[in-house]
Amino acid sequence: MDALAVPEERGRGWYLSLMVPNTKGNNFAWLDPSRLYCNHQALSDCVKDLLQPFQNESIDLVAGIDAMGFILGSAVATTLSKGFLAIRKAGHLCVQTESQTYSDYSGREKLMEVRKDVLRPGQRVLLVDQWIETGGTMQAAISLVEKLGATVIGVAAVAIENSDGGQWIKENYRCSHCIPEDLQAQIDRQHLDSFKSFASLTQ
Amino acid sequence: MDALAVPEERGRGWYLSLMVPNTKGNNFAWLDPSRLYCNHQALSDCVKDLLQPFQNESIDLVAGIDAMGFILGSAVATTLSKGFLAIRKAGHLCVQTESQTYSDYSGREKLMEVRKDVLRPGQRVLLVDQWIETGGTMQAAISLVEKLGATVIGVAAVAIENSDGGQWIKENYRCSHCIPEDLQAQIDRQHLDSFKSFASLTQ
Repeated sequence: MDALAVPEERGRGWYLSLMVPNTKGNNFAWLDPSRLYCNHQALSDCVKDLLQPFQNESIDLVAGIDAMGFILGSAVATTLSKGFLAIRKAGHLCVQTESQTYSDYSGREKLMEVRKDVLRPGQRVLLVDQWIETGGTMQAAISLVEKLGATVIGVAAVAIENSDGGQWIKENYRCSHCIPEDLQAQIDRQHLDSFKSFASLTQ
Repeated sequence: MDALAVPEERGRGWYLSLMVPNTKGNNFAWLDPSRLYCNHQALSDCVKDLLQPFQNESIDLVAGIDAMGFILGSAVATTLSKGFLAIRKAGHLCVQTESQTYSDYSGREKLMEVRKDVLRPGQRVLLVDQWIETGGTMQAAISLVEKLGATVIGVAAVAIENSDGGQWIKENYRCSHCIPEDLQAQIDRQHLDSFKSFASLTQ
């Protein structure tokens, strides 16, 4: 599908087909939401879908996770007319930070940090990332927000896999994602055959 | 200044004072625009200022540079109702890419890449990054867009230093940034004393 084309009829999740193809195989992410962002209608509909469960919530700040969560998080913040807080890989910030270790999708231990001079008790924060796989990165981001006394009112991502960590997040926080129920099993399986279903969504 | 407070009077560049302080010294970025993004009015005014020179231009796509350029670029794209293209550090994308070497702010040689299936001749692209220091990263991004036949209609960043690379970009492309003329010299000097002037902007 042409990256910038907008179909006449836009069914629920129509933009997911923009996440294919993967031409490099299993060592790379099997679906890439970044192509979805290139299409303004897809990005707008994706943000709208992610915000739907929170439409009656008061949100003070949107926090996004380094690096791809910055794109979706900033689009969400701009759409809501709210500020955007970057939750960053460690070592970049020139101010005092709160930090949290985590294991990323590859199993490596890493450190994530957030500046200390923005979050405070009473603030209601919506956390955004591109994709929740093992859930380790999002769990670290949740810890950072809560350590500083702010409240995580929800978690939003294009997809939340039913990994142990992903399920823990779904059980403990209000979540939103863009994957229709009948495709969730394919997200969880992370199998290249899934491409076919995603690609056929709008055909 | 409270990160989320909005002053009653908002003069040109009022939000720049949100970029202080640096409490860790010279090994870190001396000003951090990420605190500006936390304030919804600051982010909105910053985006508006960056877009002002391009208000009569037709823009097809906004491209932002990994990682901090994702935040500002996505806010610009959402404000314009345009798509957002990620220009990424190499090694992440699961599709065929165009790549370009560059030297980052620390002088290390790195590789940047962009997917090949979005940009095409005739597209008019606005390039966005947080801060242009040596200009190497932005020059690589310009090369990537042009190699794929698209047109760079402008370059936007919170600040563009008058380094050799920064000047080359200013001479060859329409640019926008947020730094008032009388503060540009302090941006170029990158001296910690500059904090005082920035902090006093709204006092």
